[in-house]
Amino acid sequence: MEKNLGEIARLVGGTIRAEHAEVKVKNLGNISDAVEGDLIFAVGAYVEAAAQSKASAVLIPNEVKDFPLPSIRVNDPKAAFAHLLETFAKPKLNIKIGVSDRAYVGEGVKLGRDVSIMPFAVVDDNATIGDGAIIYPHVYIGQHASVGANTIIYSSATIREYCSIGKNCVIHSSAVIGADGFGFTTKDGVHTKVPQVGNVVVEDDVEIGAHVGIDRAAMGSTVIGHGTKIDNLVHIGHNCKIGANCLIVAQTGISGSTTVGDNVTFGGQVGTVGHINIGGNSVYAARSGINKNMPEGFFGAGFPVQSHAEWLRMTASLKQVPELIKAVRQLQKEKT
Amino acid sequence: MEKNLGEIARLVGGTIRAEHAEVKVKNLGNISDAVEGDLIFAVGAYVEAAAQSKASAVLIPNEVKDFPLPSIRVNDPKAAFAHLLETFAKPKLNIKIGVSDRAYVGEGVKLGRDVSIMPFAVVDDNATIGDGAIIYPHVYIGQHASVGANTIIYSSATIREYCSIGKNCVIHSSAVIGADGFGFTTKDGVHTKVPQVGNVVVEDDVEIGAHVGIDRAAMGSTVIGHGTKIDNLVHIGHNCKIGANCLIVAQTGISGSTTVGDNVTFGGQVGTVGHINIGGNSVYAARSGINKNMPEGFFGAGFPVQSHAEWLRMTASLKQVPELIKAVRQLQKEKT
Amino acid sequence: MEKNLGEIARLVGGTIRAEHAEVKVKNLGNISDAVEGDLIFAVGAYVEAAAQSKASAVLIPNEVKDFPLPSIRVNDPKAAFAHLLETFAKPKLNIKIGVSDRAYVGEGVKLGRDVSIMPFAVVDDNATIGDGAIIYPHVYIGQHASVGANTIIYSSATIREYCSIGKNCVIHSSAVIGADGFGFTTKDGVHTKVPQVGNVVVEDDVEIGAHVGIDRAAMGSTVIGHGTKIDNLVHIGHNCKIGANCLIVAQTGISGSTTVGDNVTFGGQVGTVGHINIGGNSVYAARSGINKNMPEGFFGAGFPVQSHAEWLRMTASLKQVPELIKAVRQLQKEKT
Repeated sequence: MEKNLGEIARLVGGTIRAEHAEVKVKNLGNISDAVEGDLIFAVGAYVEAAAQSKASAVLIPNEVKDFPLPSIRVNDPKAAFAHLLETFAKPKLNIKIGVSDRAYVGEGVKLGRDVSIMPFAVVDDNATIGDGAIIYPHVYIGQHASVGANTIIYSSATIREYCSIGKNCVIHSSAVIGADGFGFTTKDGVHTKVPQVGNVVVEDDVEIGAHVGIDRAAMGSTVIGHGTKIDNLVHIGHNCKIGANCLIVAQTGISGSTTVGDNVTFGGQVGTVGHINIGGNSVYAARSGINKNMPEGFFGAGFPVQSHAEWLRMTASLKQVPELIKAVRQLQKEKT
Repeated sequence: MEKNLGEIARLVGGTIRAEHAEVKVKNLGNISDAVEGDLIFAVGAYVEAAAQSKASAVLIPNEVKDFPLPSIRVNDPKAAFAHLLETFAKPKLNIKIGVSDRAYVGEGVKLGRDVSIMPFAVVDDNATIGDGAIIYPHVYIGQHASVGANTIIYSSATIREYCSIGKNCVIHSSAVIGADGFGFTTKDGVHTKVPQVGNVVVEDDVEIGAHVGIDRAAMGSTVIGHGTKIDNLVHIGHNCKIGANCLIVAQTGISGSTTVGDNVTFGGQVGTVGHINIGGNSVYAARSGINKNMPEGFFGAGFPVQSHAEWLRMTASLKQVPELIKAVRQLQKEKT
Repeated sequence: MEKNLGEIARLVGGTIRAEHAEVKVKNLGNISDAVEGDLIFAVGAYVEAAAQSKASAVLIPNEVKDFPLPSIRVNDPKAAFAHLLETFAKPKLNIKIGVSDRAYVGEGVKLGRDVSIMPFAVVDDNATIGDGAIIYPHVYIGQHASVGANTIIYSSATIREYCSIGKNCVIHSSAVIGADGFGFTTKDGVHTKVPQVGNVVVEDDVEIGAHVGIDRAAMGSTVIGHGTKIDNLVHIGHNCKIGANCLIVAQTGISGSTTVGDNVTFGGQVGTVGHINIGGNSVYAARSGINKNMPEGFFGAGFPVQSHAEWLRMTASLKQVPELIKAVRQLQKEKT
């Protein structure tokens, strides 16, 4: 990408000192193993480390005062860097527009313009694929399902019948959208399936990781709100309503019929019980086990969940319990 | 489905008051968002809420005394409702009977009557598919594997060689039955694979969720007992023997060579060590970590596992430890 | 496999008593359900149980003194048994060498000698497949990806573009190598994708379980060191560097940018935060939650992680907290 800093500053709307305008950079790099020619970015505590790296230039926040290396000051260095990655560093891929003659497209399917349907993809009867959508090999789009414009669905993902995926979504490989919810009636110890006649609605701008399972509703819809991003191996049970712009980190499980507000972050390996409401604008640390309704604006941790501050205090205290037992025995002994 | 309550009462074997026989219902609905025309069901604490809903009629248990809305009394409202869903509400699907000319069927395969083998499914050499089985796109049935009558296998599931799936099973998308167990010998820090020469036997009436992995035995068989239902993202290690009519909720992991009795429920995200026996007729709460042999009829929780009652008591007590430490320090101080 | 013990002893380099050389064995068996004709193996505490089994002969360690049944003494009975399984007990499979006319091979692909590319596999443009590699149905090998010699990739696995898999690897069904890492910039609550322009490098002799997700690096490479074995449903975040000869048990999650040394064992359902270093030659018990940098040679457990010995002590002590609270109240009462 050989560019000089002046050009890059214009691209990202940043400011540079005049004497750095002709500094040349060749690659986008990482702070930890930067070499000469690299442009890197740094925020917060990393700015100091960046100053000592071998990078040729650094994207730093506007508010940084002195900085010894050639730099570009911007509002949000990470976002600026992401823009440069998008422009210069994406590995080249040859995406063929059109329907492969090795794909299977059923009856009554509606295909938008400029779609890419790759070999061995299946778009089953009466499904709809929006303009510019990209369907990788071995994807299964079920009957009457719909995929919005410019959505990418990677290999071996499944969108079951009557489910709906919004625009500009990314569905990673082997995700399964719309498998039956886990619903049974039990009589004399024998479990009988309750038909799961609802669907899944994934709104626009959602990303869904590899091996994510989002179950179809028993009736009505399981909903993933717009802009929500879901990491790998997450389970979302039937009839959940997940709000907009949530972040759900890997291996989290949300049990059925749970409602989650907007802007909620779940760390990795979180679990929730079913049939609860989790208020918006909240953060739950990794491994939180959420077993009750939760208010708006909460920062939770632990199982059973408590506030993060209480959890830290409790967790630190538990290590002292073996000593505490000794102390109490001593007190009991002295008393006599 | 426009029907009057009299017809529906006959269908589900329930009783109604004569004056309600002509009440019309149009849809099956949910208690939480019922509208006029809906028939819903309610049990236990939900009966009161149902009485205040906008539903036109409610399936309620026989023992409910007074109820203000038109209602049908039955033994098991959930089961009756499931029957109505099955009859009236299942989304229409066009399942083509026969072998797609885009499927691959190997040599020596035995196909039952009225099977549906969809595009790009692979039934490898010497496999057997029972009458009425439905094999979705991108399913792989390995050599010498067998699938029982009326079993449905959804897209991208894998049944590896020599494994056997019973009758009336449902295998969800991307489930993997019969991958190699995790077995190695280690010498000087280098791990060498122990061939996993056994298989998996899934008995009749089993449901297996999306992304479930059930590993083939090192020798002999990993067994899933009849009527057991497994939720998404569950791991079952090699040589496990899971009993009949168990319920295994999402993200649970059962380590290798563990035996589980009949009628055991594991909540979500449970884990067990390997080589233990877990007695039947038991319930383990979500996140239980089972690290030893367990008796019949146990209700367990926590890690390491204890009785659910003890776990509740212990968990509540732990929040008091920070205060307890202060109290003990105070006692020590006062003593001097 | 009907053989006499003399032959088998020669095969595994073991010693037998002369009078046992003609003992006949028919099958390799398990200690728990051995029948006449079986050859089994036993180590440690199981030697005594083996002595009382119905097996016709037992592979035992050299150091066992007296043993009542016909036996073969070897250094490592499990390894010797694994060798016999490999030789005599592997289920027969008919692997067709060559490229199926139902597979899809893109432009510029380099195929080694004696590869097997099965029906409906996709090897996309400019990918490389090494000699003797076996690619099962519904596998997707992305553009510019490479697969080393003698590697087996089972059905529905995905190797995304530009990723590299070493020699002699085993990749199980539905594993996903190279999905995008979970990276976003957030402004006013809206999350924008950071392009993930790196790849995944899996070195030689690695085994990767079913439903494992290993995310591609944001920049550079996510690396899995040679000889490492990964069980089912494991998540490895972007930019992780996992050392050589590690064992990672099922449902473990390693967050992004974490570095793990050589010879580390993670039990099942372990979790780690991101951006930490975990020293080599370590063992972390099941469910460990690793939230900080860890030294070499550690044996850890619990969440937050501590030494296994401390964790055992702490965990035992916690059950006493309800009694402790009573004791302290009593002391407080008596004081007055």
